[in-house]
Amino acid sequence: MSETKRIFIAVVGVGGVGKAFLGQLEQLRERLQKQDPPLELRLVLVRRSNKQILQKDWKALDIPKVLAQLDSSNERCPPFEEVLDHLTKAPSKVILVDNTSSEALATTYPSILQKGISIITPNKKAFSSTHDLWTSIFSSAANPTPFPSQTRETAGYIFHESTVGAGLPVLSTLADLLATGDQITKIEGVFSGTMSFLFNAVMPSLSPSEGGTFSAEVAKAKSLGYTEPDPRDDLNGLDVARKLTILARLVGLPISSPTAFPVQSLIPKELESCSSGDEFMQKLPDYDSRMTELKTAAAKEGKLLRFVGSIDVASEKVQVGLEKFEPSHPIAALKGSDNIINFYTKRYGSNPLIVQGAGAGAEVTAMGVTADLLRVIRLLH
Amino acid sequence: MSETKRIFIAVVGVGGVGKAFLGQLEQLRERLQKQDPPLELRLVLVRRSNKQILQKDWKALDIPKVLAQLDSSNERCPPFEEVLDHLTKAPSKVILVDNTSSEALATTYPSILQKGISIITPNKKAFSSTHDLWTSIFSSAANPTPFPSQTRETAGYIFHESTVGAGLPVLSTLADLLATGDQITKIEGVFSGTMSFLFNAVMPSLSPSEGGTFSAEVAKAKSLGYTEPDPRDDLNGLDVARKLTILARLVGLPISSPTAFPVQSLIPKELESCSSGDEFMQKLPDYDSRMTELKTAAAKEGKLLRFVGSIDVASEKVQVGLEKFEPSHPIAALKGSDNIINFYTKRYGSNPLIVQGAGAGAEVTAMGVTADLLRVIRLLH
Repeated sequence: MSETKRIFIAVVGVGGVGKAFLGQLEQLRERLQKQDPPLELRLVLVRRSNKQILQKDWKALDIPKVLAQLDSSNERCPPFEEVLDHLTKAPSKVILVDNTSSEALATTYPSILQKGISIITPNKKAFSSTHDLWTSIFSSAANPTPFPSQTRETAGYIFHESTVGAGLPVLSTLADLLATGDQITKIEGVFSGTMSFLFNAVMPSLSPSEGGTFSAEVAKAKSLGYTEPDPRDDLNGLDVARKLTILARLVGLPISSPTAFPVQSLIPKELESCSSGDEFMQKLPDYDSRMTELKTAAAKEGKLLRFVGSIDVASEKVQVGLEKFEPSHPIAALKGSDNIINFYTKRYGSNPLIVQGAGAGAEVTAMGVTADLLRVIRLLH
Repeated sequence: MSETKRIFIAVVGVGGVGKAFLGQLEQLRERLQKQDPPLELRLVLVRRSNKQILQKDWKALDIPKVLAQLDSSNERCPPFEEVLDHLTKAPSKVILVDNTSSEALATTYPSILQKGISIITPNKKAFSSTHDLWTSIFSSAANPTPFPSQTRETAGYIFHESTVGAGLPVLSTLADLLATGDQITKIEGVFSGTMSFLFNAVMPSLSPSEGGTFSAEVAKAKSLGYTEPDPRDDLNGLDVARKLTILARLVGLPISSPTAFPVQSLIPKELESCSSGDEFMQKLPDYDSRMTELKTAAAKEGKLLRFVGSIDVASEKVQVGLEKFEPSHPIAALKGSDNIINFYTKRYGSNPLIVQGAGAGAEVTAMGVTADLLRVIRLLH
């Protein structure tokens, strides 16, 4: 009972989520090595855009020191294929943790999986780009989707819980609903922490005196770090559209791309051509009256404006944009920058199964990745 | 790639949940046998209190016909140990599905697990009775709790998602939070569909004219089938206390029993000695003024009454009873007979991770059991 099993971990991307993941990995490593029988999680690669540390001799990197080591390292970044070639020669199973948002890396997932390397990632690109890439990934992986029980044992596993709602149990819940034979009729929710914050601030209640102007709240969200560096990357709705694409595909709809269905952009048409985010922020107040009009119209109906995504499964209708909700509706009653996901299913009837909570942030996003790591570990053992 | 793997399924208890489970099992069986490589789920035992069908030759029972077959069968029920002895000789792995609420069966879980038989169950008894039984179960199982990665491969696995919140992802979410290293500070929620229905009906809003009397709503809940045959079995709070015991133990608190912490009973003291549920229901209206007083007092504070359970981890304080919430609080805003579970954790900060939806009913309870079946299948493969 005392032979140590070993799994090699390769981390690409050490931004906010990557750093938080390394912290959680170290905690998990300490715990699993004390198990009987022990399991060793051995970090053998850390790579960012311009630098990497790859342990060619498979010796363990010291996780708490690895970021400082990477800063002071002079190891150039070879093409990733070279690194992969090396990883395929590892004397134990390898799990690649893609903490980037790189589309280029995402397109190589099928070949990585075919090499027997498992992937866990919060990177939405692989799952929300072309439908061909989606099909290629899940026909390469050891776990087809929906995930009933594992097959294709020589391939790698792939999990991506954090691509929707960060660490919230969204994809795992959907997978359980589908795998146990429930029928999803509709999925609806607030899938962006930024949009959640904005509309909870712009229209907290039906009272016209409450809530800031749209531009003021965008500026506030930006200053709090709740938006991308250029807020247009949130306001164009594409982030939400990518998440809806992933959910719709898991339900079985063959969505060709995140622009294949109606997505409402909150960027005024006149500002689409702004050359910079700063110029955009400067001119945005000129268009506040538009949102104020929408707000007033919604209030007249006794409803609050919220930016939501929805998938109607029977009609195969996917859409992203502003909708109106009674103040008592769970979507309208959301707080802060929380996400909420409502699963309407045959079994659950008129009241949906709801998952709610923080849907962004380094620690909770990393938590989804760490939960995926445990899923793969259980399957590989 | 074409050798068929096989898992034997033994079902004990064929009431509402058991019947719904058999329906879901048949659906899953059909799907898994079409997989490549196929996996055969073979039903070899169906047993209820007075009858059983055990396939001594290990031939598959025809799931859609098995209940009629059981009705017309004359096979006596031997002691369960005899059945177990036979199951340990099965030529493939066996999963026992305990759809009963039998405490006697629950106490034998450790020996069943030690024989290499896995258990999935919505039966709360095993996990909410003595702490010794709890310890004995998880020291016998292949998966210790919290569940990091599997060990003890010769023992059986045990999963019990449906013991709290039926099919809602409550225990799996808690397991992920713990296994990824988050710190749970508090768990609070409405854990009983009956109590949820009752208080949403007794006090739907702050308006004194809305809401029925306590006794009238209990009678209504009973006629709708939302209570146990004797409503006192819901009103005594013990069902909620059992669920809280399970959650608290998973968090690491050594709760000795479901009566080891304060549990408020809604049965008037004077009616505790009623000899029957009917007598109780007849006399309950005499005590309505007590609930009406509590309701009025809560309304004066601008709050709604709800029957909740909570676990404060730092102070190790567990309690079950009436609490007051602002109408906008997610616990007060609950609809119908839904459950809601709020996980307050270090990572999620001031806004909890929330899981909400139907927490009772045959199909959703069976769904939790079927999801557990898939978990075991993945681990056994």
